[in-house]
Amino acid sequence: MKHKIESSWKGNMKFDALVSGHHVIMDALPEVGGENSGPRPKELMLASVAGCTGMDVASILKKMKVELESFKIEVEADLTEEHPKQYSKMHITYMFKGENLEMEKLKKAVDLSQEKYCGVSAMYRKAMELTYEIKILE
Amino acid sequence: MKHKIESSWKGNMKFDALVSGHHVIMDALPEVGGENSGPRPKELMLASVAGCTGMDVASILKKMKVELESFKIEVEADLTEEHPKQYSKMHITYMFKGENLEMEKLKKAVDLSQEKYCGVSAMYRKAMELTYEIKILE
Repeated sequence: MKHKIESSWKGNMKFDALVSGHHVIMDALPEVGGENSGPRPKELMLASVAGCTGMDVASILKKMKVELESFKIEVEADLTEEHPKQYSKMHITYMFKGENLEMEKLKKAVDLSQEKYCGVSAMYRKAMELTYEIKILE
Repeated sequence: MKHKIESSWKGNMKFDALVSGHHVIMDALPEVGGENSGPRPKELMLASVAGCTGMDVASILKKMKVELESFKIEVEADLTEEHPKQYSKMHITYMFKGENLEMEKLKKAVDLSQEKYCGVSAMYRKAMELTYEIKILE
């Protein structure tokens, strides 16, 4: 199976990527010649892993009949200082809210995503240190 | 330096990631419980590398006083069949249009991005095979 996208230059530092029929705008900050009309491209790597593992966890918990009031994922990454600037470390925090949530079930779902299903996490792990934690919010 | 994003679950398979103040919606296809209200998260990896190298190339060519009529980047990736599904190969095609474009200058800008500046390409290269080519469109 193949995935394919096309990104078009819109002048200055702005690009419009067509991804499965959806437009994803990327732009730089004004201090480097952009207009901040979209996120920085590198940061999309953080959204990508959050969405990938998030979808796994949401569908596994649904199968386990765990009901959630809210579910947020925070991804934080450390950037190297020298060029090419890369993420050396990434940390994912899974935050769940709901009635009588059991940490054991949440952990099972997250571990399954991280160890078995999330391809984005598996790829990133080859390029950087990837860690995660789970929090139940009151 | 740190980058940080937060992604919120919007029910079913939909997530809304807040990336530097910009909302990036991700969703799955209906056949896996989504509503296709945004791109697949893994495909954002392709947009990310296109934007990263695209911005490098656009700014290097500007410094070289190369004027472009259009500039598109296509990224194609091969997905493994077994879980976790990963990109085994990625190919980037840079397509330029403009009057009297010199391949040598375009190649210099693209090579500089791929070898020195584009952090996303550098990270992906640790996880998969990454190749690229340059085309001048008539």
